[in-house]
Amino acid sequence: MVKVPRSHPRYLSLKMREALVEGVEEGITSKAGLIAHGRGEMFDYLLGEESIKTAKIAERKAIAEMVDAENPVISINGNVAALVPEEIVQLGKRLDAKLEVNLFHRTDERISKIKRSLELNGAEKVYGLDPEEEIPGLDHKRALCSHEGIYTSDVVLVPLEDGDRAQALKDMGKTVITIDLNPLSRTSKAADITIVDNIVRAVPNMIEFEPLHEDFDNEENLKGTLLFMSERLKTLSEEI
Amino acid sequence: MVKVPRSHPRYLSLKMREALVEGVEEGITSKAGLIAHGRGEMFDYLLGEESIKTAKIAERKAIAEMVDAENPVISINGNVAALVPEEIVQLGKRLDAKLEVNLFHRTDERISKIKRSLELNGAEKVYGLDPEEEIPGLDHKRALCSHEGIYTSDVVLVPLEDGDRAQALKDMGKTVITIDLNPLSRTSKAADITIVDNIVRAVPNMIEFEPLHEDFDNEENLKGTLLFMSERLKTLSEEI
Repeated sequence: MVKVPRSHPRYLSLKMREALVEGVEEGITSKAGLIAHGRGEMFDYLLGEESIKTAKIAERKAIAEMVDAENPVISINGNVAALVPEEIVQLGKRLDAKLEVNLFHRTDERISKIKRSLELNGAEKVYGLDPEEEIPGLDHKRALCSHEGIYTSDVVLVPLEDGDRAQALKDMGKTVITIDLNPLSRTSKAADITIVDNIVRAVPNMIEFEPLHEDFDNEENLKGTLLFMSERLKTLSEEI
Repeated sequence: MVKVPRSHPRYLSLKMREALVEGVEEGITSKAGLIAHGRGEMFDYLLGEESIKTAKIAERKAIAEMVDAENPVISINGNVAALVPEEIVQLGKRLDAKLEVNLFHRTDERISKIKRSLELNGAEKVYGLDPEEEIPGLDHKRALCSHEGIYTSDVVLVPLEDGDRAQALKDMGKTVITIDLNPLSRTSKAADITIVDNIVRAVPNMIEFEPLHEDFDNEENLKGTLLFMSERLKTLSEEI
C-alpha cells in the first residue's frame, strides 16, 4: 500500500482501509469483511463522517444497558479487531464486560490471532476459542459460542454483526446492541439499540460518554438517522 | 465461500461478491478493489438495484460519443475484469473500441492475467502490457499507458476509475466517460458523461441501447440521480 500523507483530506478513511487490508494479510480480517467495510464507508460519507445526534443518543443508551447488565459481553470479529483493537479492550474494562471472539468466517487460526492481538492490547481474558455452546437457529460454525460469554449473556454488544446472528441472539431473548453504519441492515433493524456510527468514533465515544437513563425508541432513532442522510444527499445535489 | 442458492433475495449481489473475492484469489482484483466494491453496493441499494432514468440517458449518450469517436478506448481494471469479462469484450466489438488494461495497483502479473482472461472471452487484441507512454501528472506506475490505445484516444470509457486518473485524462483534453455507482466521487464529477449504474447492468445496456444524439448536461443528470437517492432514503425511513 502507498503511504498516505497526514495532510490528505481522506487521511482517516485511507488509514482505516490500510488497517483492514493489513488485517487480511495478517489473517485477522476476511476478504468479505473488506466489502462490508466499503459499504460502511459510503454511509459514513452520508453522515458527514461525524457522530450525529442520533448516534450519540444510542451510544449513551448502550452504555446504560451494558452497565446495568448481569453478564454483558462484547462480541469481536475480524473488522473490529483490525480497526479498534486497543479501544475495544478499554471499553470492555470500562463496562466490566467480557470479550468474546466470534467470526462469520470462522477458523481456529483467525480466532487465535485475534485473541492474541487483544491480549497484546491489554485484555486479560478473551472468550471464544473453545466454544461449548451453540446459538440456536444458525448453522454449526456460525452458532459456536462460549457458555460463560455470549451464551449466558443478557446484554450483548455485537458491532459490525451479520444479520442472521443478530436476529438469532435477539430470539434467545438477549438485549442486542450493535454498531453498524448501515441503518437499513438486518442487524440494525433486529437490534434493540442501533448505533449508526463509524466504529472508530463510536467506541471512543462509549469510553467517555455518560449513560442515558431516559426512554429510548430505536425505530424513531433510526428514522432520524435516515432523514439526516436523505437531507444530506439533497444538500449535496445542490452543491454539484 | 458458501454456495448461494439462486432463490436468495440477494443472489446477484452475493454472486458479485463471490466473483470479486475469487478475483483476488486469482490475482485479478486488488484488496482495495473489494472495499471500493462495497461502497458501490450501498449506492446501488439506494438506486433500488435498477438502472434508473438518469443512468439510461447517460448510457445512451455514452454510446453516441464512443461511436462517433476517432479512437475510442475502453480502460479495464481488476474489478471490471472480474465482474463483466465477457460483456466488456462484446461492448468493445459493438463500439469498435480498443481494450486496454490499466490498473491502479499495477503489476505485470495482474495485467497479464487480465489480458488472458479477456482473450479467453473473445478479445482479439488487448493493449496495456507494454506501455510506451505516460499520462501527464500522475506518478509513474499509474501513468503508464499504450500509445495506440489510451494515450491517443479521443474518447475513453473508464469504468470504476480512480479520481486522479479520471482528472488527468480529462486534463489531456479527452472526452471521459465513466461508470461509477457513487455520483459524488471525484471520477463522477470529473467525467463528461457519468453513468451512475452497476457495471453488471450498464455494460449489457450499452450493448443493446440506441445512441442518444440530443444535448446532455452531466451536472443536471448527476443532480437528478442524487435527488432520486435522497427520496429513496426518505421513503425507506417511512417504512421502518
